[in-house]
Amino acid sequence: MDQSGEKVVSSAQLASKCMVNPAQVRKDLAYFGEFGVRGVGYYVKDLLNSIKKILGLNKEWRMAVIGIGNLGSALLSYKDFLKQNYKIVAAFDIDPPKVIGRVSEKLGKPVEILHISRIKEVAKERNIEIALITTPPSEAQSVANLVVEAGIRGILNFAPAQITVPEGFVLKDVFFTNILDNLAYLLSNS
Amino acid sequence: MDQSGEKVVSSAQLASKCMVNPAQVRKDLAYFGEFGVRGVGYYVKDLLNSIKKILGLNKEWRMAVIGIGNLGSALLSYKDFLKQNYKIVAAFDIDPPKVIGRVSEKLGKPVEILHISRIKEVAKERNIEIALITTPPSEAQSVANLVVEAGIRGILNFAPAQITVPEGFVLKDVFFTNILDNLAYLLSNS
Repeated sequence: MDQSGEKVVSSAQLASKCMVNPAQVRKDLAYFGEFGVRGVGYYVKDLLNSIKKILGLNKEWRMAVIGIGNLGSALLSYKDFLKQNYKIVAAFDIDPPKVIGRVSEKLGKPVEILHISRIKEVAKERNIEIALITTPPSEAQSVANLVVEAGIRGILNFAPAQITVPEGFVLKDVFFTNILDNLAYLLSNS
Repeated sequence: MDQSGEKVVSSAQLASKCMVNPAQVRKDLAYFGEFGVRGVGYYVKDLLNSIKKILGLNKEWRMAVIGIGNLGSALLSYKDFLKQNYKIVAAFDIDPPKVIGRVSEKLGKPVEILHISRIKEVAKERNIEIALITTPPSEAQSVANLVVEAGIRGILNFAPAQITVPEGFVLKDVFFTNILDNLAYLLSNS
């Protein structure tokens, strides 16, 4: 709505877009503060900024991809990240020369793939806060240890392996098999 | 436990592995039926089969991948699927000759990539129940329409686009940006 120049939105309009009821929209937003103006609705730009702030999206998140196989390459060229200020600023692998050709072919500009041994130095230089791990499962824990040591704060782990991190460190797993389990359950009961 | 030959497990052992309390394990399982034997615990093989049945995992799920770019290729070679009876039995693209070289290089055996126009015929022949959509976002809806027409029952959608399907059809989205939003939220509040 902001992109298309709309200035004001009512809770009824928001509700209709989100397929919930207007009272729920007002209640949910009120939970975080006073965003609405009685008789007017919400100012689109203000509401957008407030929601971004609540969600931690009012800043650029600088990320590294570790493990440049097919999945790592897919993430390097995943355009949707940029819409939300997720910026991949480094790519690591255990064997950079082997993979550099394949990745640069896919992307507009060549991506410099660095050896994983440089992660600590590069994480500091480039202010990396999130690591996307797309290594084989057997390597995921040792890579996660390097990520923690490098002072990176969060991991999105795509490798199908349970990894452990120190308390306070943020880890989210993206296990395609678990997501399929959920789909299979829904199909079995539909 | 079944693979390592263990016959019986107590709710305390299960609870410890899952990091919950034993009463919760007993309560959750009791919700689905009478699995435990008083003073014994659970028979591992029986419990495993019962849980698989509840989750819809006591059968092979036959899947197609549609859109064989980097992400599609990653899914074609994702070994973890096989552990849970998820079998990719077909791969489709709009331009099979363009991609076939890249995929076969990655996999042990060459995968035959078919033109998307053949989906209806192949879905019936190969009993495909789930489609993994990894096309560009602009193509996701038209591909989803073909999937529905082909009699496939569920979609796991990786393309960052909202697609709509008829009521009763099962659709799950895997939007990497949304998952990152969740990580960013946790990092902002940690």
